[in-house]
Amino acid sequence: MFTPETFLNHVSVVADSVHISGQSNAIQFRVPECRLSDDLGMLFENQRFSDVTLSVGGKEFQAHKAILAARSPVFAAMFEHEMEERRCNRANVESVVFREMLSFVYTGKATCLDRMADDLLAAADKYALDRLKVMCEEAISLNLSVENVAEVLILAYLHSAERLKAQSIDFINTHATYVMETSDWKSMIQTHPHLIAEAFRALATQLIPPIGPPRKRLKQN
Amino acid sequence: MFTPETFLNHVSVVADSVHISGQSNAIQFRVPECRLSDDLGMLFENQRFSDVTLSVGGKEFQAHKAILAARSPVFAAMFEHEMEERRCNRANVESVVFREMLSFVYTGKATCLDRMADDLLAAADKYALDRLKVMCEEAISLNLSVENVAEVLILAYLHSAERLKAQSIDFINTHATYVMETSDWKSMIQTHPHLIAEAFRALATQLIPPIGPPRKRLKQN
Repeated sequence: MFTPETFLNHVSVVADSVHISGQSNAIQFRVPECRLSDDLGMLFENQRFSDVTLSVGGKEFQAHKAILAARSPVFAAMFEHEMEERRCNRANVESVVFREMLSFVYTGKATCLDRMADDLLAAADKYALDRLKVMCEEAISLNLSVENVAEVLILAYLHSAERLKAQSIDFINTHATYVMETSDWKSMIQTHPHLIAEAFRALATQLIPPIGPPRKRLKQN
Repeated sequence: MFTPETFLNHVSVVADSVHISGQSNAIQFRVPECRLSDDLGMLFENQRFSDVTLSVGGKEFQAHKAILAARSPVFAAMFEHEMEERRCNRANVESVVFREMLSFVYTGKATCLDRMADDLLAAADKYALDRLKVMCEEAISLNLSVENVAEVLILAYLHSAERLKAQSIDFINTHATYVMETSDWKSMIQTHPHLIAEAFRALATQLIPPIGPPRKRLKQN
């Protein structure tokens, strides 16, 4: 049987001491890197002492209420009010995306931004993970193109991603002649006309100096 | 009643977008600092979903098995083998020190090193928190003096703090004439003579060039 004492002789030396003969004060204290993120990442993997099962997209995830609640106000509210676990099905998130989001909750890191930034943005917004949301917005903005900018603008609008929305409108206005030719732009005129109006407002503000409304024409006497 | 949807409209904007009229690509994505450490620090304070009570020095601490086990192999063994919680009494750690150690376990930070590095070193060694141990060793080494170095050497020896031990011996040898006059040094001769021998070995290695044993005297014919 293990006791705390068992471990007293197993403390590994994490930094060698450097001692140069004849030279004092030469010992280096190399403080190891903080392992908080790695340790919690391991905990997410091994599920030790898990106290909640989340069912998402037909897959089950073993997790820890305390950690989810500490990191996301949405999870906190879910667990505080003892909502039925199965409600997570309502998240409408793919299991592979949900897994990546949980990994972020435990570690503070997102490793799949290149592959699923758009889906993760929706999940981050849903669970109020502000930092992950900005990370997704940044990743998406780096891949803006004439072809995808209308779709990105709608995504940003749907998930209150204000920075990405502003970036998309800026991109549209810079490449307006090309964007206006895309089918996504043309369908956005029907589906989200208020976004077209927002783009127009930004373009107008950019082009026309703020000199007040036009003067009324003077009556000719 | 809260639902996940309740929060959809409460995502705060954590970074303002910067948009300079007439200049494209000017929106900054300022990714907020990682809050993992702060979030877990809050969890330690508010004890939400706590599943273990640790009794130390007459004080009780509500904590989370999963987090303690993820961070310390000693806690992991304690909980895996369902040792009685009260055994923590055997830790022989003051409650104020235990609290600071728990805070490190949750956050990866130690804020009281200036006040309790020596006690924390003992606790870090006991619970196999390698990083905290090196942080303590470093803090103690910065305050080495002729008066305390013998005591520090014994502390380092008792808790297998090899770097601090080497640093102490180095300090002793650099200030030998003064250290030898202190009462702690004189009492160490009685209580820990092997440490005196180690200091002697280090001093001898430092002073005498490694040219092998003295030659035997040649017989005179």
